[in-house]
Amino acid sequence: METNAKSLEPVQKIDGLVTPSLLLDRGKLERNINRLADHARKLGVVLRPHMKTAKSIDVARQVFPTEPGPITVSTIAEAEYFADHGYRDMTYAVGLSPASARRASELCRRTGVALKLLLDTVEQADALADVRKATGVTPSVFIELDCADHRGGLKPDDPKLIEVADRVVAAGAHLVGVLAHAGESYRLSTPDALVRAAENERSATVRAAEILRARGHACPIVSLGSTPTAHFAENFDGVTELRAGVYMFFDLVQHGVGVCAVDDIAISVLATVIGVKPEKGWVLVDAGWMALSRDRGTASQRVDQGYGLVCDEAGRVLEDVIVSQASQEHGILAIRSGSPKSMPDLRVGARVRILPNHACAMAGQHDFYSVVNGGSPEIDARWERIRGW
Amino acid sequence: METNAKSLEPVQKIDGLVTPSLLLDRGKLERNINRLADHARKLGVVLRPHMKTAKSIDVARQVFPTEPGPITVSTIAEAEYFADHGYRDMTYAVGLSPASARRASELCRRTGVALKLLLDTVEQADALADVRKATGVTPSVFIELDCADHRGGLKPDDPKLIEVADRVVAAGAHLVGVLAHAGESYRLSTPDALVRAAENERSATVRAAEILRARGHACPIVSLGSTPTAHFAENFDGVTELRAGVYMFFDLVQHGVGVCAVDDIAISVLATVIGVKPEKGWVLVDAGWMALSRDRGTASQRVDQGYGLVCDEAGRVLEDVIVSQASQEHGILAIRSGSPKSMPDLRVGARVRILPNHACAMAGQHDFYSVVNGGSPEIDARWERIRGW
Repeated sequence: METNAKSLEPVQKIDGLVTPSLLLDRGKLERNINRLADHARKLGVVLRPHMKTAKSIDVARQVFPTEPGPITVSTIAEAEYFADHGYRDMTYAVGLSPASARRASELCRRTGVALKLLLDTVEQADALADVRKATGVTPSVFIELDCADHRGGLKPDDPKLIEVADRVVAAGAHLVGVLAHAGESYRLSTPDALVRAAENERSATVRAAEILRARGHACPIVSLGSTPTAHFAENFDGVTELRAGVYMFFDLVQHGVGVCAVDDIAISVLATVIGVKPEKGWVLVDAGWMALSRDRGTASQRVDQGYGLVCDEAGRVLEDVIVSQASQEHGILAIRSGSPKSMPDLRVGARVRILPNHACAMAGQHDFYSVVNGGSPEIDARWERIRGW
Repeated sequence: METNAKSLEPVQKIDGLVTPSLLLDRGKLERNINRLADHARKLGVVLRPHMKTAKSIDVARQVFPTEPGPITVSTIAEAEYFADHGYRDMTYAVGLSPASARRASELCRRTGVALKLLLDTVEQADALADVRKATGVTPSVFIELDCADHRGGLKPDDPKLIEVADRVVAAGAHLVGVLAHAGESYRLSTPDALVRAAENERSATVRAAEILRARGHACPIVSLGSTPTAHFAENFDGVTELRAGVYMFFDLVQHGVGVCAVDDIAISVLATVIGVKPEKGWVLVDAGWMALSRDRGTASQRVDQGYGLVCDEAGRVLEDVIVSQASQEHGILAIRSGSPKSMPDLRVGARVRILPNHACAMAGQHDFYSVVNGGSPEIDARWERIRGW
């Protein structure tokens, strides 16, 4: 249930928005989308954007203005939603369970969507036979690779790689390729290290594909990606597609990694000042972790941005002002520790924009985007988001 | 948009739930509700539960089975929602902005609800004159107190206390009392310290009321509360009402503080195993921070519960198994560092329940509760939740 809806209807100006509200800057979004699209084009790979960050048909339409393209999803609910909007070529990039494989296959049967699944164990491969029998759909699956001890997946040299591939075929399913996600690249912060991580991801993934091909598996798709490695990759030999999601919006973590400028960050939370404590150097706003998320991704980076970096109402950064503490519906703004600056004069009723540590997490706290353009006081559009599983 | 809805309809058993799903144990909820209600009755104060944790009319009906009672809300959207369900006596316990005061007063005018507001500055008090003029409603306000340097509010001895009270009256608004929140009690962990924190909160709040009465302000309501101090208070002399919210569900942070047993925790996230990495001692599940929240409230406590403590499908704790890492839709289960235990045999497709660090944050990631009863395989009911502002 989205109760902000009724309040927003007559509003055309940012001034009239209920706070906290999620803003999305259309110009920055467009610039970020074009940047990675251009890079993928130059490298000669298909870009399959991950919709887990935006979760919005309206944002997807900015990426694919003429017709639906290939996408990645993080939940079956996203797959159902994008299927309803005409998307036909999707990868569900989370390891399958027997129940999710069945639900995915039912979606394929019902809508004709090609939804590719992910696995890395013989048990998951074996379970596909039952799914096929129950739904009449031949599942298409990737084998998940582990290129740097990040999460799930098999190492290219793990003998289980071939075993799992053979069992996929034995279960009557279709092996479409290998898929890696260089999640560990979020911890890096220099161009050299990012270039190396991208090359490590590429070489591990291509090697796995070669091992499978030597065994007689065609392995047509070689898929990899993470926003940092996608931008820093210099060579994609042997790779067929690239996945990334947060690149559309960017955030302070990506800024800390070195992938974007602060000015590229396309989303923020608009908040209103509800109190001041000059004796402590605090300004209280009506955006707490319910609006900002609990994500503290920059805490382990060189510059800790608290619960977010603060801008004025028009989006200009207030240097060294961060959300230093957050409770459910309260944020405390303060000057970053060690800074010589003093707090700007923010009075009750003033508004600020707060940039996210992690765009996926901040956006996940909201049901829609109010689309803005730079410092313009107008709201361009209201774009929906989905959630749930 | 709640896409899980369509999948849930034919489901009556936990087995058939899409994962991740939020479970609420009805028996534990009832026990927790009764515990604090009994305590408030013994202490002779009104209990005004905070609905920011549950955000659900169905849960409110467990607290008030016969007719709507007094409640606290954390957003105007909550006030609007509960007003639609017949609740008439509410306190919006977040400092007002001119915009939120106006929206609240419009709600009062439209529905006849008594929605009390909160402030701690002369600027906020002065703004009430305009609100009154614009809406024709006389705002009722509390002055927020600061009893331990926690967030907003005035110290009882701060001369601004009287100044703000006088300005509320000068603006033509109604001063209904003083309100404190002992948020710092979340950091405590011994009964003695909690009893002292409760007494500190009580004495500071009562003292502020006395100062205002000496100035001629009636100050009929003396309101305080936080889940830890509410349970540990031994003396409520001079206090008229108690607020608490997380007590209905409890969580691992409250367990770490010493307010509840693990067995009292009424909500959990049901998740499915989607991978195993025996060489690392990892089991991967389909609940990441999108389902669990990013809250790491136990990280600063004696026992760090990671992103949550893991139970088997029926809700029995798997000793020392925690969610050690989380990404958006992945959780990694592992044995707590330092424990001699080894990982139980959890295979792909198996289900677990994950207890929250912070109930408000975990519940906030979901749009409904699947109501269960202990280890029974049946789902009793599906209860809605609201979100937004």
